[in-house]
This record gives sequence, structure tokens and C-alpha cells, in this order.
Amino acid sequence: MLSTMCTLPKGNGKMRVVMIIGDGMADRPLQELKYKTPLEAAKPENMDKLASSGISGLLDPIAPGIAPGSDAANLSILGYDPWAIRGGRGPFEAAGAGIELEAHDVAFRCNLATVNEDFVIIDERAGRIRDEAMELAKALQKIQLRENSEIKVIFRQTLGFKGALILRGEGISTNISATMPKAGGRAGSVKPLEGSFEAEKTANALNEFIKLSHELLEDHPVNRRRRSEGKLPANIVVPWSGGKPPVIQPLYEKYKLKAACVAAVSLIKGIARLSGISVIDVPGATGDIDTDTMAKANAALRAIEHNDLVIVHVEGPDEASHDGNIQGKISIIKKIDSMVGAIMDHVDLDEIGIVLLADHVTSSRFREHTGDPVPIAIASTEVVRDGVRQYNERAACRGGLGRIRGKHVMPLILNLMGSPEKIGG
Amino acid sequence: MLSTMCTLPKGNGKMRVVMIIGDGMADRPLQELKYKTPLEAAKPENMDKLASSGISGLLDPIAPGIAPGSDAANLSILGYDPWAIRGGRGPFEAAGAGIELEAHDVAFRCNLATVNEDFVIIDERAGRIRDEAMELAKALQKIQLRENSEIKVIFRQTLGFKGALILRGEGISTNISATMPKAGGRAGSVKPLEGSFEAEKTANALNEFIKLSHELLEDHPVNRRRRSEGKLPANIVVPWSGGKPPVIQPLYEKYKLKAACVAAVSLIKGIARLSGISVIDVPGATGDIDTDTMAKANAALRAIEHNDLVIVHVEGPDEASHDGNIQGKISIIKKIDSMVGAIMDHVDLDEIGIVLLADHVTSSRFREHTGDPVPIAIASTEVVRDGVRQYNERAACRGGLGRIRGKHVMPLILNLMGSPEKIGG
Repeated sequence: MLSTMCTLPKGNGKMRVVMIIGDGMADRPLQELKYKTPLEAAKPENMDKLASSGISGLLDPIAPGIAPGSDAANLSILGYDPWAIRGGRGPFEAAGAGIELEAHDVAFRCNLATVNEDFVIIDERAGRIRDEAMELAKALQKIQLRENSEIKVIFRQTLGFKGALILRGEGISTNISATMPKAGGRAGSVKPLEGSFEAEKTANALNEFIKLSHELLEDHPVNRRRRSEGKLPANIVVPWSGGKPPVIQPLYEKYKLKAACVAAVSLIKGIARLSGISVIDVPGATGDIDTDTMAKANAALRAIEHNDLVIVHVEGPDEASHDGNIQGKISIIKKIDSMVGAIMDHVDLDEIGIVLLADHVTSSRFREHTGDPVPIAIASTEVVRDGVRQYNERAACRGGLGRIRGKHVMPLILNLMGSPEKIGG
Repeated sequence: MLSTMCTLPKGNGKMRVVMIIGDGMADRPLQELKYKTPLEAAKPENMDKLASSGISGLLDPIAPGIAPGSDAANLSILGYDPWAIRGGRGPFEAAGAGIELEAHDVAFRCNLATVNEDFVIIDERAGRIRDEAMELAKALQKIQLRENSEIKVIFRQTLGFKGALILRGEGISTNISATMPKAGGRAGSVKPLEGSFEAEKTANALNEFIKLSHELLEDHPVNRRRRSEGKLPANIVVPWSGGKPPVIQPLYEKYKLKAACVAAVSLIKGIARLSGISVIDVPGATGDIDTDTMAKANAALRAIEHNDLVIVHVEGPDEASHDGNIQGKISIIKKIDSMVGAIMDHVDLDEIGIVLLADHVTSSRFREHTGDPVPIAIASTEVVRDGVRQYNERAACRGGLGRIRGKHVMPLILNLMGSPEKIGG
């Protein structure tokens, strides 16, 4: 941990901001928690201190009642119109995996999954395979198509069961049915959604890649070992949410500020890269509930010394929620709380503002994103303290920010920084 | 009353919703009530229990300060853009009266009114004539135009002084000045608003219909009896708010849900019919403060067993407000409160959510709709209870929903049902 306070020379009037995003951290009241939410049950004392030191409110990532994916939610919070940015998750995942995208590429998010001999999905996440996936990835990276050899494939594994795939070549179509089947659905049956030669070629190429991945993985030593240990084999790669790279105005052009992002998952890293935010890799950041949040705090504190805005994204709460793991969600919230405490201990709220929010609600009961608002708190000596003393879905109802939208977050941050958008004179 | 709880088989994750709309139920503080509103003065214990079991807020049916007609308010609450749906109330009234509209029809709302020998309005509602109007309607239904015989007229009486009129034929114009004159204004002087043959023909046809209605009603036995009893005669039919049938995407297409509506007044029935909501007729539902709200509760409880959404609309508070009848408004609010209690007693909030709102404020002092927000409360185990313990205009200011718009109601309901609109992946 850094031992000094991070401050700018006094008097230049320019405030910096650390924005902490707990992915899917907000929830609904849960019967298992006597109708408290996980944030309420976790009693996160540093988050509560943060709320007490600032102004709170409810944030609709998109609009009341609309359930966003993490891509749409985080784009909206960065001030981009998620309805206008087309292309699905694929390009963000690929950019986050470190692939340099070309304009005509079509990029996919991928899952390492478990299928039976008929390609029927047994588990969409291959028993949440972790480090062993890296060894499988080495083999998968060598795949080149034979029947569709005019299309180049580039595969990268990112975190655990997650990966990204690029199809590169002339006339690749996005008009194909590449989705992630739920358990019981069939993988490797991508179909063209139009009669064009390009759509048919692209569907064939994807199906060939999926088939080759299965041939390569089915008897891979890692999977033989996993089977012997009673674990599900990661015996197929399923590409989904494909699209061409979106055109995004870089954040430094849009808002004239220098930003960095501390994140583990490639979707967020990719959003950052494609919007001109520098990405800081942190050893120990896993994208799950065992992530090293203190390493993230340290990385953020180092980064805020030479950036206007540092975004710290923690994926864990969303992962726990999708698993219906309420206690896991509470435990990662407590870890994020320690991270918040470490950051608060080392910044002067007169110089550095802290914004704490979730990108969306993930319901632990229904194991999916919902359209409910999330709590947001902005701690700074420059905001009106509204008397809200807790950071959670209920306390935020009484907050001085009222009910705002994702698209309002960046204007509020620019205003706090002393560089608001101006109109009139 | 039904004796069983209405529940879905547990675990399908699909919540259903009963939406209760008190027409014009919200108000401003009234000097006569020591600056309480009628909702505050009525102390509706079941509505308060509903608010205590959920989340509250303020709802602008359209936008802050905009005073909506009941047509615009209810369309907005159903998620339709009231600025985009043209055609006035007429087509809704006609559809609600059971007339099958054709594309080129022009439909009007009608009032049975009282005029003097110069067609000057003495009372816009003919002394609020009730059941006797049905006898007059039998005569009025036989009217056919003589001077404008190429235009077919179809008249239906709906509730008391209310009715609907269709003009059917080639080249009927909506560009005419057909409004409902206040007392002192003159009926039967409809004018074309453009120089076209069609507008002139349509104005002539309407004036002929109005004149024929007067000839038929002036000495009708019902009116002779009313005069002898010191009551105002219903001696003219005044058509107003005319328009062509609007094109509305059915609710089941727009939101993929099955909905039913329990309502007495034809405007609401017509909005339901034209938006693909099945209409449930309830004997004893009068559209006034003497309506049988318990019959409505029973109908709603039966309907929710096989619908995703049931809307229960009660017209009475609006009627009392337009008459400046404060005590009448309080009494119908108390009856609606009993209806709310009956519904709450028979549903499990873990399976069925209840949404309570007014469609707009009707000021009992000014006897007209205003642009103030209305209180809304959503009771469900899936929402954060915000500590608001009363359902009224003042308590809702502190609610966790904040200040929302009519257009947010359906997205919030879909989200509660577990079927929110989604964006991104």
C-alpha cells in the first residue's frame, strides 16, 4: 500500500476522480437475507463511510426497467449511446484479449464449454475451468481452417472459460446465428441468417472452427486429467455475440481527459481500449470472487497520480450472482469494501473525488441482470452531503442525486473535475 | 369474494401484475380539507398498507407540468406515445362502445346535454342523466341523415350522458371545429377548418345530426317526465373530439404479454380494445362514485388467474372532481381502498405484484385536470421497501422510485415480471 497521500499541488482547481464499479453488485431484496440485499447484508463500512462523505442516488444504467448487458451498461456509464454502438460483445472481448482489430474483422466472445458426443451442451462454462484453460488455449491458438482456408482465425483465451475469436478475410458476414446455447442446446450449428454467399461462408467457417476445437480438446491431456478427477472436460469452444469493431470516439477526445482502467475481464478491458482508456493489468486480478482487490487498490492509487480519471472494475459480484451464490456475493462485496477503504485512506477528498456504483443489478434469485436502478455515491468535499450514511439500494433512495441515468455519470464527473460541458455564456 | 390465494405454480419465475388506476384520484391540497388532499383526508388504510409493502414515487403521466386528458394519460401509462397517437378521444369512445371501426370512419365522443331554444348550452351533462339515457339512445340510434344522406351515422350511448358517434362514408374530414362548448356556448355550429369540399360536407353532416337529435329529444317522453320532476332535459347530442381510428401496436405484440382490463367507461374500454387488451364487463360498474368496486375486485382476481397483467380502472374520483364534489371524491377513494384491500387479501406478493396509481391529477377546486404528478406505489417482495407508509401525494415525495414518467410504468412492470427489455449481452 502506498504510504503517502495522493495530492495535486493546491489551487489549480482541477479535481481527479477514481470511479469504482462493482459489476452486478446491486441486487433485489432476498428472502434468504430476510429481504435485505447483499449490499445491506454485507454491512460494508468503508462504502458506508464513502456515502456519508458525499451524495447518493439511484442510477438507471440505461432507463427505468431496461436490463442491460455489461457492455451496454458500461458504455452508457462512459457516456456512449449503447443503442448506437452496434457489434455485440465480441469486438470488446477481442480487444480486451489484446488482439489488434482490423476494420473488416468479425470478432466473437467464446466460451470453453462441455458437450456430449452429439455436441449437446452439458455445461456452458466447462465446470468453470480456471488455470488449466491456458494449456488448452495453447493448442487452440494453432487451429487454422482447412475447408474454409481463405478465412484466418485468431483465438485467445482470456480468463478461465472465457475467450475471444477473430475471423479475418474478405466478405465475412455478421448475419449468422451464433449464440451461446444454454445447457441442453446444441453447439456447432451456426446458420446463415440470409441467403448470401458471405453469410453461408461465415457460418461454415465458424462450424468448422467449433468442430476442430472439439477434435483438439476431446482427448487433450488436460481433459483426460479433469475427467479422472471427476471434473467436466472443456471439450469445445463456442463463439457467440459476434460483430465488427465499433467506431467509438476516444474518451480523451470526447472529454479532453486522460483515463486509465484497472480491470480483469476482457470485456471491460476491451471497452477501455476501444474508447482510448489505458488498461492496467494487475497480477492477481482474476475476474472472480477470489480476485486480489488490494492489488487493484494499489494499482488505482498509482494510476491516479498521472491520470484525470481511474476506473476500477471488479467483476466478482456479477459472477457470484449468476451462480446464485449469495454468500459468495457478500464475501466479494466485503473485499471490494476493503479496497474502497484502502483507496479512501490514501486520497484527499478535496483533491480526488471517489465515485462508487454498480453497472447494473444482477438478481441472485433469478441469476440474471434486471432493469432495477443501482446505488451510486459520489464522495468529495465539493458535493452536498445529503445525510445518507449507507451505500445500498435502500439508503440511496433518499439520496440527494435523486434518480439519474448512466449517461449522466460522465457529465457529473466532468463537473466535479471543474471541466463541465458549457452552454451559453 | 374468492376464498383462495391466487398463485402461480412456484418456481417459474414469472410474476404477474394487477395495476389499479384511480382516474383523477390525485389532487392538490384543498382549503376545505385544511390543505390536505382527498387521498390524505380519506386515510385509505389498504392503500397505505400497499405503499408500506413496496416502493413509492411520483409519476408525471406525460412530463412535469403537462395536464393530460384521460386518453393521453392512459396511453402514456401503457407505453404508447400520446404525442404520436392522433385522432382524439372519439375513436376510443366508439371502440369502447362496441362499434367496429373502419379505417375511413371519423368517430366522436358525444354528450347528451341541455340547451335552450337557441342551442345555447345550459348544462353540458344534462343534469348527469343516468339510466333514462338508455331510452333516449333507442330513439337516437334510428337517426339517419337526410340532407347528407351519403354519410352513414352510427350512434351509441355508453354510460349516462356519454355516447359515441361514427360518420361513415367517402371523404369525411377531421378538419372541422367540433368541440364540447361550456355552459353559455352554442351547440350545433360546427364549422369547416379548411376550404375543402370534404370539410364542408362533414361539418354540414354533424350539424344536421345535432339538429335531428334535438328534434327527436326535445319532446321525448323521458324529457317531458324529467321537466315535470324539475330535472334538466337531455335535449341534444353534442359530438366532440373527433378523429380517425389510430394505428396502435397491440400490447401483446409490443410486450409479449396477455392483458385484461376491468373498466366501466368506454374511453378506457376503447383504449384497451384498440391496444389488444381484453375488456371485462362488470355488472354494477357505473363509471361514477356509486360503482361496485368489490365486483371489480372479484373480476380482477378471476382475470389474473389467466393473464399476465390485469388493469382495474375506476372512473369515479375523476367524475367527483369535475363536479367539485370533495366529499364524493373522498367516499369513492374509500371504496377503492376497500377494493385494494380485497385484492391484497387474495394475492401473494411473491407471485403477483400490485401497482397503484392515478392517471392524472384532477383538481377538485378548479374542476379540471392539472399537470401535477400523481403518487404511484409498487408492492412486491421483489422491490426494495423504501419506508414510505402512506399512499398519497405527500408521502410519495419521499419514495424510492423518485420521480418517473408515464412511459416508465410498463418497462418497470415488465422488469418486475422478469421480462425486461434487454440491451447488449
